[in-house]
Amino acid sequence: MSEQLTLYLHKISPYSEKIELALVEANAPYRGYQVDLSNKPEWYTSRVNPVGKVPAVTYGGPNVDPDDPSPLSAKIAESNIILEFLADLYPDSGLLPKDPVLRAKVRFFIDATTKYLEGASYDFIRGQGSYDSVLKGIEFIQGLLEEGKGFAVGDHYTIADACISPHLARLKIVTETDTGKFPVGMGYKLGEELKGPKFAKFTKYVQRMLDRPSLKQIHDEEYVTTFFKTRFTERVQ
Amino acid sequence: MSEQLTLYLHKISPYSEKIELALVEANAPYRGYQVDLSNKPEWYTSRVNPVGKVPAVTYGGPNVDPDDPSPLSAKIAESNIILEFLADLYPDSGLLPKDPVLRAKVRFFIDATTKYLEGASYDFIRGQGSYDSVLKGIEFIQGLLEEGKGFAVGDHYTIADACISPHLARLKIVTETDTGKFPVGMGYKLGEELKGPKFAKFTKYVQRMLDRPSLKQIHDEEYVTTFFKTRFTERVQ
Repeated sequence: MSEQLTLYLHKISPYSEKIELALVEANAPYRGYQVDLSNKPEWYTSRVNPVGKVPAVTYGGPNVDPDDPSPLSAKIAESNIILEFLADLYPDSGLLPKDPVLRAKVRFFIDATTKYLEGASYDFIRGQGSYDSVLKGIEFIQGLLEEGKGFAVGDHYTIADACISPHLARLKIVTETDTGKFPVGMGYKLGEELKGPKFAKFTKYVQRMLDRPSLKQIHDEEYVTTFFKTRFTERVQ
Repeated sequence: MSEQLTLYLHKISPYSEKIELALVEANAPYRGYQVDLSNKPEWYTSRVNPVGKVPAVTYGGPNVDPDDPSPLSAKIAESNIILEFLADLYPDSGLLPKDPVLRAKVRFFIDATTKYLEGASYDFIRGQGSYDSVLKGIEFIQGLLEEGKGFAVGDHYTIADACISPHLARLKIVTETDTGKFPVGMGYKLGEELKGPKFAKFTKYVQRMLDRPSLKQIHDEEYVTTFFKTRFTERVQ
């Protein structure tokens, strides 16, 4: 695989963080380009992703500057689709297992993360969702984790781990700093609740994911924390 | 592939119809079992799909009666995940192309169908959605179709075609019989609108999909029409 791959990302986005994690875990060469989301360049929507969101990747075509994308490269959007794309590009990376049943398990984990955790935790942080929804999502995810395994599915880091990790990293910030538009103390409360025996399996998994070198390399905790604090200052007292 | 595969389905469900279409298109052996959704058997939720929905498949394990599923088979739920599973089981079926970029296109089409057409058209039929949402969904889908190609992506029937076809077959009923909980005439109106030049590319694609032998074999138009008429009798006059 020697085609160029450019990832359009933003450090605040858990969705582009998924892709960077998968790229690093696969040891794949890529170029990352931070899109200014507050002042989105015109060329990004007209020539990379019509929806204007990150992440998106360009693949193949000539080697050009990321801010002058070529019409000859393929453009791929939607984080979970890009994850599958990387697994296809790097079939020996382990990003997806070879066994069809295990692959289905990875996809079920991703589907559950998307349906029950992504929206619920982001809504909670923005003060638009419920504490209970986050807990329910976590409980569902925990139910999928196999005892004694270190990863979302099986014995290897897959796109399921890459999909959930950025959300786990953001929940860590929320539970440790109580940052969010929810009533004061609810972030800490969630943190305490997750430390209890009921969530022991989930918490152990979270710690493993947060300890991954890929996450430490990609995830800018200080930046995300500062952003959250600035963005979510209006609090319910 | 000689492992047993049992599909739990219901003729009314577009989601299980997707799976049957893919199985037939791949010429894959399977056993279909119609689940009584109005009086769901206890064993189905406890031993096949905890969520209780169709479709679900059991794969592998001993050959048992579908109503006595074995704990030794793998259980897979969620229609789009099962589609990917079939493409993995039958890599030479063409259900997914080999090329990673084309695979991403198939997945983008499935994602768009799920996000913009599935919910919108079902809500419309139930009288809970808007006419415009359905049209917008169709417009988005049409934008993905390549001129001169007969399929959702490329020159071969893929899981993208299997994913959308059951919805197209149901929209046909709605537009030809005006059946649904929407105001009287809206179904016909949609049909007329889709016959216009604006939707020519989409309509041509729809016709190709409705003409597929796999759809004719699997889709029971009379049954679905009767069900719709019975279910959606309460009309806004």
